[in-house]
Amino acid sequence: MSLVVVGSVAFDELETPFGKTDRIIGGSGTFISLSAANFTKKNKTKLIGVVGGDFPKDKIAMLQSKGVDTEGLQIKENEKSFFWKGKYHNDMNSRDTLVTELNVLGDFDPVIPDSYQDCEYLILGNLAPSVQKTVIDRLKKRPKLVVMDTMNFWMDVAWDDLMQTLKLVDVLTINDEEARQLSKEYSLVKASKKILAMGPKVLVIKKGEHGALLFKEDQVFFAPALPLEEVFDPTGAGDTFAGGFIGYLASTGNIDFSNMKRAIIYGSAMASFCVEKFGTERLEELEEDELDERVQEFIDLVQFEIKLS
Amino acid sequence: MSLVVVGSVAFDELETPFGKTDRIIGGSGTFISLSAANFTKKNKTKLIGVVGGDFPKDKIAMLQSKGVDTEGLQIKENEKSFFWKGKYHNDMNSRDTLVTELNVLGDFDPVIPDSYQDCEYLILGNLAPSVQKTVIDRLKKRPKLVVMDTMNFWMDVAWDDLMQTLKLVDVLTINDEEARQLSKEYSLVKASKKILAMGPKVLVIKKGEHGALLFKEDQVFFAPALPLEEVFDPTGAGDTFAGGFIGYLASTGNIDFSNMKRAIIYGSAMASFCVEKFGTERLEELEEDELDERVQEFIDLVQFEIKLS
Repeated sequence: MSLVVVGSVAFDELETPFGKTDRIIGGSGTFISLSAANFTKKNKTKLIGVVGGDFPKDKIAMLQSKGVDTEGLQIKENEKSFFWKGKYHNDMNSRDTLVTELNVLGDFDPVIPDSYQDCEYLILGNLAPSVQKTVIDRLKKRPKLVVMDTMNFWMDVAWDDLMQTLKLVDVLTINDEEARQLSKEYSLVKASKKILAMGPKVLVIKKGEHGALLFKEDQVFFAPALPLEEVFDPTGAGDTFAGGFIGYLASTGNIDFSNMKRAIIYGSAMASFCVEKFGTERLEELEEDELDERVQEFIDLVQFEIKLS
Repeated sequence: MSLVVVGSVAFDELETPFGKTDRIIGGSGTFISLSAANFTKKNKTKLIGVVGGDFPKDKIAMLQSKGVDTEGLQIKENEKSFFWKGKYHNDMNSRDTLVTELNVLGDFDPVIPDSYQDCEYLILGNLAPSVQKTVIDRLKKRPKLVVMDTMNFWMDVAWDDLMQTLKLVDVLTINDEEARQLSKEYSLVKASKKILAMGPKVLVIKKGEHGALLFKEDQVFFAPALPLEEVFDPTGAGDTFAGGFIGYLASTGNIDFSNMKRAIIYGSAMASFCVEKFGTERLEELEEDELDERVQEFIDLVQFEIKLS
């Protein structure tokens, strides 16, 4: 069994109401794999991506030390890594993109090492839908579960590609605004029905500080976000959530609805760590026993007992 | 035992993306008492308020038929009832007030009938904080539980009165924006700490479609709103929630934290009915068995099983 993650591995430069960063590492592939590797055995979370020669080698070593196999991470020594610079507004719920430099991501051709062909769990982090599809096409055996993330940008510029890739996946994870744009419905319940008709069997709608919804056929599950004193930096929280979600599913080998509920809670717990510090900092220092404590906080937050007659 | 509700009993005129109404009945006292009466025995939910001669007698009879004691509802035959006209924006999360006519509410002097002096549960619906305080002062025996609702308007125009009344109540229910304004903190966790230092022992923050948070000392509980295909008209949902909350507590006679969690679920279930039709329409036609079915939907929505080692 292995869990394959494809996504951007990149530099971010961030400004939040709490401070600024220099260039730090980020990207969907980075956050997803760092999060998922907490659940899988060493080297069973396998990363596919591309960086330039400017990407710090010690950060690749850090990913490896956390249990991420980076054989599928291409290094283009003479090129530059993808770069995103953004500034969060005071409410932390919206942000402006100040700079996007595609660099190596502009012509990214995902190569799948032979050792990744045992992939049972595949997660397609936010990338061009055509690139996401290429990864599915290049796997010799269809994985047991394919999870896909995307964003509104691709709905604007690559609608047809997006529709094609959507037909091939099992689970789509998007945020509430993206669900509304994709379905052209304001109500998330109506949106979920339209989106589930586009291909995915399961839809996860991420609502940031307002939690996450899981839809499958007529079933729905809701998990809150943990109420925190401060959300220090939301960058990567959605990817960290998705990484925890698929990591938990892969580690338990069970993709039924009741286990997906648990996976949503574990994903939410991982995301609640992510936002406590800038970038990947909190995930890098996360200790194993902290995760159980955090999951217990989620249980305490939502559990109640009502006996209906 | 009785549950006393004080609040406005009024006319509303509404416009939502789904349509318009003529003058229909509304007001915090109306929604709270209609909701609470689902939980208490006949005539144990007792309403204090004031209307003009223009208020339809058949609507007072409707309240009575639903189990609301209206002895404390003053009728000023030669005056007009409070009137509010509002228009909701497309997202239903914000609205504009188009008209507010205080009329009889301008010099409302709440009179407490002798038969209301057995009050054990008191809920102060949104009214001037000085009027809310008068009700507490005029009860000969301090109730077992006093719940208070308020709104940002009183923070703007009656801050000192509000602070005085806050010191006298057990539970404050406000929405997220109001919690932020009252505490001058954006984080709801920080806001809750400041507000709990102002007097109330328990704080309920209503987040509309994003659910509700319950805070007491270091304990926190979260209940989602039910994901609905449509929110037809949110008017009165917060009051209906509060009515279900205190109605459930009164009917069970238990005000500990674990029972307050259940009360939050019952309040959320009542609110989920309220928004399905204009004004009080859905609450007026609610059948007893529908409530249990709705509560079961909440249980299904949030329950999961995780066994931590």
